Parts: sequence; C-alpha cells; structure tokens
Amino acid sequence: MSEKSRFLNACKGVPADCTPVWFMRQAGRYLEEYRKLREKYSMLEMVRDPELAAEVTLQPLRRFDLDAAIIFADILLPLPVIGIDFSFIEGTGPRIHKPLMDPRHFDQLREGDPEQELSFVAEALSLVRERLDENRALIGFAGAPFTLASYIIEGGHSRNYLATKSFMYSYPEKWEVLMETLTRTTIRYLQMQIEAGAQAVQLFDSWVGALAPEDYLKYAEPYTSRIFKAVSGSSVPSIHFGTGTSGFLKEMRSAGGDVQSVDWRIPLGRAWEIIGTDSPIQGNLDPLAMMAPADILKKKVEAVLEEAGNRKGHIFNLGHGFLPQTPVRNVEMVVNMVHELTS
Amino acid sequence: MSEKSRFLNACKGVPADCTPVWFMRQAGRYLEEYRKLREKYSMLEMVRDPELAAEVTLQPLRRFDLDAAIIFADILLPLPVIGIDFSFIEGTGPRIHKPLMDPRHFDQLREGDPEQELSFVAEALSLVRERLDENRALIGFAGAPFTLASYIIEGGHSRNYLATKSFMYSYPEKWEVLMETLTRTTIRYLQMQIEAGAQAVQLFDSWVGALAPEDYLKYAEPYTSRIFKAVSGSSVPSIHFGTGTSGFLKEMRSAGGDVQSVDWRIPLGRAWEIIGTDSPIQGNLDPLAMMAPADILKKKVEAVLEEAGNRKGHIFNLGHGFLPQTPVRNVEMVVNMVHELTS
Repeated sequence: MSEKSRFLNACKGVPADCTPVWFMRQAGRYLEEYRKLREKYSMLEMVRDPELAAEVTLQPLRRFDLDAAIIFADILLPLPVIGIDFSFIEGTGPRIHKPLMDPRHFDQLREGDPEQELSFVAEALSLVRERLDENRALIGFAGAPFTLASYIIEGGHSRNYLATKSFMYSYPEKWEVLMETLTRTTIRYLQMQIEAGAQAVQLFDSWVGALAPEDYLKYAEPYTSRIFKAVSGSSVPSIHFGTGTSGFLKEMRSAGGDVQSVDWRIPLGRAWEIIGTDSPIQGNLDPLAMMAPADILKKKVEAVLEEAGNRKGHIFNLGHGFLPQTPVRNVEMVVNMVHELTS
Repeated sequence: MSEKSRFLNACKGVPADCTPVWFMRQAGRYLEEYRKLREKYSMLEMVRDPELAAEVTLQPLRRFDLDAAIIFADILLPLPVIGIDFSFIEGTGPRIHKPLMDPRHFDQLREGDPEQELSFVAEALSLVRERLDENRALIGFAGAPFTLASYIIEGGHSRNYLATKSFMYSYPEKWEVLMETLTRTTIRYLQMQIEAGAQAVQLFDSWVGALAPEDYLKYAEPYTSRIFKAVSGSSVPSIHFGTGTSGFLKEMRSAGGDVQSVDWRIPLGRAWEIIGTDSPIQGNLDPLAMMAPADILKKKVEAVLEEAGNRKGHIFNLGHGFLPQTPVRNVEMVVNMVHELTS
C-alpha cells in the first residue's frame, strides 16, 4: 500500500516519485536559527522542553525540501532512567558522572519508567506530528545497547573502547545485567515514541563497528535483535544504523531493521550485494563531502545515486551526522539534486 | 625457495613448520624494561640513538618466541625531512608545530635526504640484524602518504579528518604536491631500510579507513601503489596495513603489498574471499582481546586460527598495535599457543 510519504514508501520498498532524502543531525549547529536558540538554552534544556524541541525539529524542514523530520533528542536521554546521570561539556561532549567501569558501581543501576521520565519526548513528537505536512515523515530514535553501554562504561567518547571491551570480557554477568536493562528500557522508549506519533524509528548503534564480528554476535546482537523484534509488531518501519561495520553488514542485517543504514566506507552497490537487494538501504555520503566545493560535492552525490542504481528502496542520507561546519548552501543543493536526478 | 625464517616463508606463501607470529608495537610501554629506559630518555631520543633503538627492538624477542622484530621507530620520523616539525606530547600524542591546514603554509615544505637525515634508523637496523638469530626476521616500516598527510594537516590525531578531507577536496593541486613529496621520501626511506638490513617492510596506512572507497582510489591509492611498485624491485616482501578498510580490501590489495594486514572488524575467512586466497594475510586479533581473561583470550586466538584454516600464507598478528595496558603473561600465552596449535 502506497503512503503519502516518499520516505515511508522507500522504507517498505514501495516505488515513489523520487528518492527521499533526510540527514542525521539535520537539526543542529550548522543552522543559524538553531545557534540563536542555543545562545539562550542548553542542549538538554531544549530537548526537555517539548515546544523548543518541536521548533528545532522543524527548523531544517522550513529551509529544505526534506522528506523526513527526526525528533530533536539525544541517544543518551534514557540513561538517567536507569540511574546513570550525565552532562554535556561544551566542546568535549557527554560526560557520565559515575561511569560503570567497576562492577561495584552497579548499585546505582535502577529501572525507571521511560514513559514517565521521558514524556517530554512524546509531547515533542505529538507537537511535530501536528505541524508537519502529511507527506513528510516523522522519525523517532534511540541508541542501541552496545553504543549506550560504551558511554556508560567509558564515561564519554572513546578511541579504542578499552574500558568497555575489558568490562564485557571480564564481567559477562554484569554486562548482561546492563544490556538487559538497556534493552528493556529502549523497547519501552521506542514504543512510547511510536504511540506518540513517530512514523519510523532508527536504532543508532553508532560505535558497534569497534567490535570484531564474533564479539558483535555475542555481546551486542542478541540485544539489538530483541529490540527490532519488539518494534516489528508495530506498523512502523525501523532503521538499523551503524558505522565502521562494512565487515559484518550481513550480521547486522540479520539482527533486524526494515532498512539498513550504511556508512561511506563501502560502495553502496557492494553493501547491497552483502545485505541482499530486497533490503532497503539508507546512505551513504561521507558527511565530510559536505565540505567539498560544489563541483566535487555534485559528483559525489551523483556517484551515490549511481551506486544505488535508482533502486526503489534507497533513502539518500549521509553515513553519519552533519558536522557543525556544514555549509547551508550545500545542504540545499544536495536535497534538490537528489530529488531532481531521481524523478 | 624456503627461508630459515618462518615469517619470511609465510610472506611468500611458502609452507613453514608453523604459523609465524609477531605484534605491532611489541616493543613498548607494556614491557617493564622499556618503561625503565623511558624514565631516562624520551621516545624520540631512543629512536634517534641506534644503540638504544636496537636494544628496545630486541627487548620483546628476549622474552617471547616471536618470529620477527620490527625496528623501533615512528611513522612520523620522515616529517622533518620534508620540513614538518613535530613533538610528542606526553599523554596526548604527536603535535605538528605548524600544520598545513592552510595552503599558504606550504612554503615550509622542502625535500631533504632521508638517507642522511634518518641515517640513525639504518644504523639501528644494522645493529639489530647483527644481533638477531637468522630464523627471526627484521621488519622495517614507514607510514603511507595519506596517513602522514592526515597528521600534517590536522596537526595530530583526528576524530573525523575534517581538515584533511576539506583540504584534499578544496586544494587538489597542493594535495598532490604534498602526496608526491611524501611518496618520493617514503620510497627513499624504505629503500634505505632495505639496504641497511630490513628483510620485510610494512607500509602503515593506519587512518585510510576514514575514506570512502572512491576517495581512496583518487586521493590515496595512486601514491601507495607507487611505493609498493618501487619496493617490489627488491627481493624483500612488503606488507600493506590499514584499519577500518573492510569495505575496500579489494582496492587495497590492488594497490600492492605481498601481504595484506587486515584488522579485526571482518572475519579472516571473509577477508580472504575478498582479497583472494593466493594472497598471504596478516592478522587479525582485536588488540583489546589481549585484556580478556585467559580462557576468553584462548578462544579468540583459536577462532582466528580456525578462520585462517592453517593456510600457509597466514601471519598471526593483531589488527593494530598493543596498548600499554597489555598484560605480559597474555603475550607469552598467545605466542606459544599460535606455534603449538599450528605445528
């Protein structure tokens, strides 16, 4: 059954009039109107205020002909629900107050109600849904358990995941407790988002590419696949996102997701061969290509579309999120190019 | 023709009595005797003193039954030869004094003589060769042009290679000047090492996995392949190293190298399918697996050997270098396991 939204059609492999396009972190610092709000509010203040979150979510859709909005939120929001507090440090990124490097710190773990403690996300979704054209889709999202666990254990970003991997090898039972808690909370959080109006959900396993494939299957996949199973009961399509996972795309596809989001480190055609041509793919321009001069960027967009071969199941996106330095004129150019070249 | 060295045989795909094993950064901080020397000397002082460099190179071979020594040096050593000065900042890593972010900074670029300015590396190689058993091989190495250029432009480590990619897209002519200079200097540097006694050379393209495959072919591969062509004239085998390149192993193989060094993000068997079973492979244990309890680590070593299927062209190694936290007892265990399980 064909939807009004190009994006939702592509998620289901249903032909649309042209290839849909949206971008990760399309609401953000590269937009002047976002930076203006950030002068007055912190990121977490904006996320926790449904009116502000809805406004920020809609900002890029006023400027560009994007086919989807993604709710303005952060993958770390569910952490306090399980007893893990964090802040954002300007210029550094997230900082977990008491990282779970030591199994003795596990007494801080609890299991709260995402429906209650993250109700502001549901409210923001409802507000956006009311204000969004029906041919634009609204995407909800959550972080996948491995990626969240890596922040919880490392305390922030990591270069080599020393603490995370040492922990999962050394304390498999504690690892399971943490991953189970994250899995259950993530399922409830995504279901809340779907009930509130999310028309698709993306699971961000952003750092899972740090794992060897056999570790992926043992320490991450069982939890990810349960989340996809749980949301597949809804009528809403799901997107499975990872970076640096070119060596185990097959395993990621098996874990679930109606759409596989692939990064720029593999040609799209090669990814399709591995995943299977029946699976819709989202991707896969290098976010750094957005910094290139117009003529180079144009060639790169054409190359992605050529690799996609105008398949009905292609959603044009980057392989990861926008950088704050992304020039607005390039975003406009790419959105229009994708629509024009595929219609 | 069979060599006395297991490692050299494996490089040529000649059967040996068992699978050879060595590790990247096997000379380093995880060893007490190395840390003792570091109390008295800086890293660069040790590298520039042939006696000290030879001593550090040989330290791990006194402890473990390793099949190869790798000369104690750093991929950044040739930078001053082309006019780029740098220091190592304790706990931070390398710092380029005047990064080439701006094309106007190119006037600092020069083309010196690696034979003269890096003669201490040649001396250290000769000393090690004299002192090393003839059944142990001595490996020389250099950084590949893209990886070196990324340091030169970013000024140090990078998360997303914003400056490097922006530069190569925006200033293709300057990029070529830089890459040509690095290529010529690297060829002379490697040839000097071969003449001084290196019996194999490894080209470290450590960060090339940040590129999209089409960018790899355009901005990195032409220079790497020239280096491999230049050293293939010698009778010394070459190893092509990268990380995060599971999506373009085929292109890396075409660029050259008698042995492909593969990281842990892809099963070894799958890598062999892509590269071709006629090509020797080096790899591919996750360096972080060295932190695992003995029973887990053992299973992981067995899994790598099983994926390798006892092929004659397998060199056991990690997918990247040792971390300073690597327990010495685990290194000993892995070396002995590899030899015992494959003999």
